[in-house]
Amino acid sequence: MKIEERLNEMGWVVPAAPGAVAAYLPWVRSGNLVFTSGQLPWREGRMAHAGRLGAELTVEQGYEAARLCALNAIAQLKAAAGGDLDKVRRIVRVEGYVHCAPGFRGHPQVLNGASELFNAAFGVRGEHARLAIGVSDMPLDAAVQITVTAELDPEP
Amino acid sequence: MKIEERLNEMGWVVPAAPGAVAAYLPWVRSGNLVFTSGQLPWREGRMAHAGRLGAELTVEQGYEAARLCALNAIAQLKAAAGGDLDKVRRIVRVEGYVHCAPGFRGHPQVLNGASELFNAAFGVRGEHARLAIGVSDMPLDAAVQITVTAELDPEP
Amino acid sequence: MKIEERLNEMGWVVPAAPGAVAAYLPWVRSGNLVFTSGQLPWREGRMAHAGRLGAELTVEQGYEAARLCALNAIAQLKAAAGGDLDKVRRIVRVEGYVHCAPGFRGHPQVLNGASELFNAAFGVRGEHARLAIGVSDMPLDAAVQITVTAELDPEP
Repeated sequence: MKIEERLNEMGWVVPAAPGAVAAYLPWVRSGNLVFTSGQLPWREGRMAHAGRLGAELTVEQGYEAARLCALNAIAQLKAAAGGDLDKVRRIVRVEGYVHCAPGFRGHPQVLNGASELFNAAFGVRGEHARLAIGVSDMPLDAAVQITVTAELDPEP
Repeated sequence: MKIEERLNEMGWVVPAAPGAVAAYLPWVRSGNLVFTSGQLPWREGRMAHAGRLGAELTVEQGYEAARLCALNAIAQLKAAAGGDLDKVRRIVRVEGYVHCAPGFRGHPQVLNGASELFNAAFGVRGEHARLAIGVSDMPLDAAVQITVTAELDPEP
Repeated sequence: MKIEERLNEMGWVVPAAPGAVAAYLPWVRSGNLVFTSGQLPWREGRMAHAGRLGAELTVEQGYEAARLCALNAIAQLKAAAGGDLDKVRRIVRVEGYVHCAPGFRGHPQVLNGASELFNAAFGVRGEHARLAIGVSDMPLDAAVQITVTAELDPEP
């Protein structure tokens, strides 16, 4: 089954790739690697999850925010791959930044929202290395932000 | 026009590449990619912008700090490219870390100081992916820090 | 002398590569590059250094924590290189995250614990670019976390 069909069967629709907030691009390809910009939990043009884990938000809400960041990253990878997610050979590394109040410790649980979507969508090609840290302040008050490095099929 | 001439016309002089603060190098090349160390707002051997956005510093000062980080990154890329910035094929990704007080939200505006210098200097080759996060504590109290991943022309 | 023998002569034993804490892998290879997940100061299955620099921990303890992160990263690189550290062609970039209380400034000194181990083990191949930032909250209360990008020998 095609990767995008698999996502659709799981109930996910790959959105239009969110644009950048400022003077940069959402992704850049170099060789077979694609480096995305920081992906935020946008949904239909709105910041869907604002606030801090361990204060305004629960771990469950953080998980959903991370999953939405991953869905937006998938939209960027689709664009980078010319519209065909099956040309994504590997999710290489996901850097995850969790907006949190002092003392929060649930970063891995929150970021599993992103990791599990990559794994479900791409199977073994979705298995990735990961960084998880807490940050005290996030652009637009976003709950979570991720960057993704991925490998695409060689260009013909 | 050569890239360094374009920078000079805009009033910028590429400084000598700042050295590393400790037991590491300012950049490493692997294949066609160059990965820089964290670049700080050094000017003539002095930390030009210390303090936190949203407290001691204004967004305008942060913008200048980010631009200075980018100028220092350009100095590193020049060194990595054997002295010729025209061998920089692409600015790939800029990771931007903004030293800030709780509640600061102007990270994108601050980091545009870096992004707009890359864009002005390198044109379409300067268009890059970007990460922006807030950090609570920075080495040397620096206002901004950036790392850059760039692609160089293949070695002969 | 083989790199692992050199480590042993210095009194270090490369541990079994720590597994990932959640739904991701400890490292992924793409081309000749290996990207590790965030490495924490695990020792024999225990978090050896928990707490914040500038509060519960001294710079010396932070240095030891960073060195232990590097030892665990070396274990991951050994696994990625099929068990032979001599196939690590270059440590490319180390991103270092120091868990700290407000006002801490000793990030470079702490992360030298990682950098100096890479340098001692790999010689000129260990010389790397580096990022150092402070973070307010860390998974598992770890004192330090590092990610490593390294270049391996081409696959036969």
